Amino acid sequence: MEKFKKNERVVALIKILSDNPNEVITLNRFSELLNAAKSTISEDISAARKIIECLSLGEIETIPGALGGVKYKPVLTVDQSIEFLKTLCTKLQDPNRVIPGNFIYMSDILGDADEVATIGRIFASCFKEKNADYIVTIETKGITPAIMTARAMNIPLVIARTDNRVTEGSTISVNYVSGSKKIQTMSVSKRSIKEGSKVIIIDDFMKAGSTIKGLNDLMQEFKAEVVGTGVIMSTAEPDHKVIQDYVSLLILNGVDEVTRAIDIVPGIK
Amino acid sequence: MEKFKKNERVVALIKILSDNPNEVITLNRFSELLNAAKSTISEDISAARKIIECLSLGEIETIPGALGGVKYKPVLTVDQSIEFLKTLCTKLQDPNRVIPGNFIYMSDILGDADEVATIGRIFASCFKEKNADYIVTIETKGITPAIMTARAMNIPLVIARTDNRVTEGSTISVNYVSGSKKIQTMSVSKRSIKEGSKVIIIDDFMKAGSTIKGLNDLMQEFKAEVVGTGVIMSTAEPDHKVIQDYVSLLILNGVDEVTRAIDIVPGIK
Repeated sequence: MEKFKKNERVVALIKILSDNPNEVITLNRFSELLNAAKSTISEDISAARKIIECLSLGEIETIPGALGGVKYKPVLTVDQSIEFLKTLCTKLQDPNRVIPGNFIYMSDILGDADEVATIGRIFASCFKEKNADYIVTIETKGITPAIMTARAMNIPLVIARTDNRVTEGSTISVNYVSGSKKIQTMSVSKRSIKEGSKVIIIDDFMKAGSTIKGLNDLMQEFKAEVVGTGVIMSTAEPDHKVIQDYVSLLILNGVDEVTRAIDIVPGIK
Repeated sequence: MEKFKKNERVVALIKILSDNPNEVITLNRFSELLNAAKSTISEDISAARKIIECLSLGEIETIPGALGGVKYKPVLTVDQSIEFLKTLCTKLQDPNRVIPGNFIYMSDILGDADEVATIGRIFASCFKEKNADYIVTIETKGITPAIMTARAMNIPLVIARTDNRVTEGSTISVNYVSGSKKIQTMSVSKRSIKEGSKVIIIDDFMKAGSTIKGLNDLMQEFKAEVVGTGVIMSTAEPDHKVIQDYVSLLILNGVDEVTRAIDIVPGIK
């Protein structure tokens, strides 16, 4: 096999780490793939780390020991997150987004893969110390940010369904009061979450928090611990939510259907 | 600003390209970001291309001219795609996946962000010449592969809803016959697709194709042209689908509920 030059090895290394966020890749694997001694690979990793950290493109962590290796965390700094959220606020303040009922149209944002990838990285940065086993969301609009958070954290996504589908096998269900005050059912396939797991709930929007409360109840049925909750947007009113501990990337202070003014600010500081 | 060494610049360059698939990044932008002359950046790009192509990690394309620059396509070769799909077949043949009604449990695959990211890259490779403007899918299970395809192709995702939600604003709806022979409605926000666009439909599963036929009808209402259709899995039976032209990554030849044997093979050659 051909020998690569140093800069070629470093490129390959960063590309592979970057394509496999939060996955430990052993020096042996790099050594085989790049046809270089482990000591050489170690030096390459140092070179990669320097530039990644210098340009604030994330973090490279070295895991020592026999099962050790290196992993890449696609985290954002708080400053980078706030800068992104400010741009998002500007986009969302477009008067054309006001929908009857004081709602804001944001399906385009949730369908913009670049934006949701960044949102996923912000959530991954918020929850990086939580050692979570799963991301959990409920269909439909939370799915795109949730899968991107799952990708950044390298853990599986579990989607709660509001109907009971035959393709899910046996399910566990709970009832909850939806935003429109109707009693609805949400269910998750029985085989999807191991008992005793730690989970992070991700959703697009929260008002009083009753849907997320429902997800908490559902997780209790799985004897799973909710170690974090993240929503893209929450409303300032009602001040009292049924959920206490959550991260909201954006706070919606109000929508005026007449003047079409939207008051929205970043929720993290 | 500090000067970077060549290998540092190349690392930064590949990281940025890789984080922004299919986005043209100008030499000027790299030149500013990395504090180096454009001629130097050009050499760095050549170095990056060599290793990326040598290790089959995708393609780097140079766009000439004043608005030119460079972009990274996260495509897989046909061999890489088939190798991945074979591994996926092995996973899916696990007898525990058989669900009453001859269904296969695959929600865990659809919630595995690494797997759906690879699936998205395979679809992006299949449709890279189509110049599509949007990816379109229908809730719920097609959303994770669809957003990953959208990310790999750098185009927006539009999700058709099976209920009509107030947060979508004005919508256009069509009726369709679902897999369970019920007549259902699917709708898409009016503002989400520009008239005259080209779209690619992505979904998780296809039997007779009536849901995808519904999406085609819906796209006609937007005067949009469907330039490609990709499903993760289609059934061999019925042989006659209501959709003719599609890419199916996997072909399900049959499920035996008694012996729990699952006959599934890669659908691309």
